[in-house]
Amino acid sequence: MSLLLAMTSWHVEDWRARFQALLPEMPIVVLGEPFDRRAVHYVASWKHPAGSLTGLPNLAAIFSLGAGVDFLFADDKLPAAPIARVVDPDLTARMSEYVVLHCLMYLRQQHRYDRQQAQALWEDDRSQPAAGAIRVGIMGLGELGQDAARKLRVMGFDVAGWSRSPKALDGLPSFSGEDGMKAFLARTDILVSLLPLTPETRGLINSELLSGLARDGRLGGPFLINAGRGGLQVEADILAALDAGTLKGATLDVFETEPLPSDSPLWLHPAVTVTPHNAAMSEPEAIAGLIAAQVRRLEAGEPLQNVVDPARGY
Amino acid sequence: MSLLLAMTSWHVEDWRARFQALLPEMPIVVLGEPFDRRAVHYVASWKHPAGSLTGLPNLAAIFSLGAGVDFLFADDKLPAAPIARVVDPDLTARMSEYVVLHCLMYLRQQHRYDRQQAQALWEDDRSQPAAGAIRVGIMGLGELGQDAARKLRVMGFDVAGWSRSPKALDGLPSFSGEDGMKAFLARTDILVSLLPLTPETRGLINSELLSGLARDGRLGGPFLINAGRGGLQVEADILAALDAGTLKGATLDVFETEPLPSDSPLWLHPAVTVTPHNAAMSEPEAIAGLIAAQVRRLEAGEPLQNVVDPARGY
Ligand SMILES: NC(=O)c1ccc[n+]([C@@H]2O[C@H](COP(=O)([O-])OP(=O)(O)OC[C@H]3O[C@@H](n4cnc5c(N)ncnc54)[C@H](OP(=O)(O)O)[C@@H]3O)[C@@H](O)[C@H]2O)c1
Ligand SMILES: NC(=O)c1ccc[n+]([C@@H]2O[C@H](COP(=O)([O-])OP(=O)(O)OC[C@H]3O[C@@H](n4cnc5c(N)ncnc54)[C@H](OP(=O)(O)O)[C@@H]3O)[C@@H](O)[C@H]2O)c1
Repeated sequence: MSLLLAMTSWHVEDWRARFQALLPEMPIVVLGEPFDRRAVHYVASWKHPAGSLTGLPNLAAIFSLGAGVDFLFADDKLPAAPIARVVDPDLTARMSEYVVLHCLMYLRQQHRYDRQQAQALWEDDRSQPAAGAIRVGIMGLGELGQDAARKLRVMGFDVAGWSRSPKALDGLPSFSGEDGMKAFLARTDILVSLLPLTPETRGLINSELLSGLARDGRLGGPFLINAGRGGLQVEADILAALDAGTLKGATLDVFETEPLPSDSPLWLHPAVTVTPHNAAMSEPEAIAGLIAAQVRRLEAGEPLQNVVDPARGY
Repeated sequence: MSLLLAMTSWHVEDWRARFQALLPEMPIVVLGEPFDRRAVHYVASWKHPAGSLTGLPNLAAIFSLGAGVDFLFADDKLPAAPIARVVDPDLTARMSEYVVLHCLMYLRQQHRYDRQQAQALWEDDRSQPAAGAIRVGIMGLGELGQDAARKLRVMGFDVAGWSRSPKALDGLPSFSGEDGMKAFLARTDILVSLLPLTPETRGLINSELLSGLARDGRLGGPFLINAGRGGLQVEADILAALDAGTLKGATLDVFETEPLPSDSPLWLHPAVTVTPHNAAMSEPEAIAGLIAAQVRRLEAGEPLQNVVDPARGY
């Protein structure tokens, strides 16, 4: 019985060493080198080449090395084994650092003050609103969205959320589904996207959605923060909305193509903040530890945790 | 009986209108125009000219229009009446916005990513620490320091505090007085100053203090955030520490001279973030409302609140 590591772009030998230390009895094999396909019981994947996980007759579970699983469902030859993703308090806390940081940067107009500093200009905004005057709307109220909502509320923001199924979360106003979308957007000054990428959410952040955001906010126009997945957004529509003034600023951690191509107009757009898909990176040791614990759980006959639903796509 | 408005640099007529609306029965007089000095029972001041509050025989209270009172004690002809300052949940929350924003900017290396964006450079920091690995030390655990500490802890930072008198605050490690200073600094990666300016705190943020900060932090060197008062800091020492590498960055909202002179090297120093003393500005209406409530309290024979101690200077 073995664990197969299937990844592109990451240092597979580092991952082999991590897993081997945690699961000393378990042979760890790597896609691309020869291995016994019948011995593979577990796969740990990050963006494996589509089609490369076929012919594994004894596969018991597929582990995503991250919180998202969209790259798995993008493989139409993915075997039918149960799929688990990473749910890690450290990763969640890091995402909330990112979301609170960027909401506060908009609230406190940090880029304006950076520009003023470069001109040695001492000028404050006498009508600076407090956080309580700013309505943040979080799309996606799962592990990440709920933690971000709680922390934004501690900072004083007026937070609401939107998810697929209705939610009752400790006084958090929340909306759901297509029916709830319009009212949710209409009360949103800063839109935070923490959605998974699924067939239903692909391209959701488009002209139509952006034009539904609040235009009467105290910061003078809506802002977008997308740290979910690049496939959620239509970048041409975001640029058009920025140029039309329908959107006042966008902070993007994720992009249609990653790394963001150097000729993308997003890089130098004055109203766009780009980060290199680093909103929430866990320590690799922590991720390996969580997956090793899942393997031990299965070996002990216990159920897999953090299982995703292939029908929903998350 | 009247209320005297004594301020420089602020729009006194706006303040007169605000107070008049709140205290319709009370004559509101303004320094610089003729008024009956014996009728003045209350003074509301923001940086009145030193010596201008003498000869008010019936003065019952002096109100600072802000949270700080250092400008009052800088007037050595200040009458002996009780002094009250503004304690305002809105102001406190705004200061915490500022402190959390700037701690997160250091944690998440926002200026690095801003620079990378300007170069269309996609590169992340694989050793990005989580907030829990960063030790924030707050000097001043009063109204502002306690709220900032609580919110920084919600964000995951490892927070401790330092104050004049020992404190036991809901599990917050805290240090006090000169005896506690060394140990406090030695466990501080980001030093946040929320102290009042008094004879004891003037010039406290100097070479000696800066050289006591932790040098082994996960962010590679200590950072300073001063939103207390400019008189707390020795700017030449901060610049020397930055250039020597003893200090890795400084975010300053307050300065020895304000507005910060346009030839100050702080403006263009690559490791300095300057904001124009706007960390925590309340709505003027809220401040006027709090002071009007204090006047009504005194008129009803009730005790003054938020009284400062002239012996301590805060
Ligand atoms: N940028 C980064 O560094 C980074 C790091 C980690 C994760 N992420 C992204 O963040 C995503 C969210 O992570 P998570 O752990 O919070 O996921 P999660 O716990 O599965 O939560 C997903 C949330 O999205 C909602 N949702 C899904 N499809 C929807 C739809 N069609 N309409 C409305 N709401 C929908 C879900 O609604 P229900 O509650 O009704 O099910 C749920 O609230 C991940 O999938 C990943 O793509 C990004
Ligand atoms: N930048 C801005 O926009 C802005 C806005 C508002 C206020 N401020 C500044 O923030 C300051 C603090 O406000 P606050 O409302 O928090 O004041 P506060 O409630 O009076 O608290 C002051 C804190 O400083 C401590 N302290 C005073 N002298 C000390 C000394 N010599 N050594 C050690 N600790 C000392 C006090 O210790 P104890 O607890 O032991 O008394 C207390 O914890 C104000 O005075 C003002 O200068 C700045």
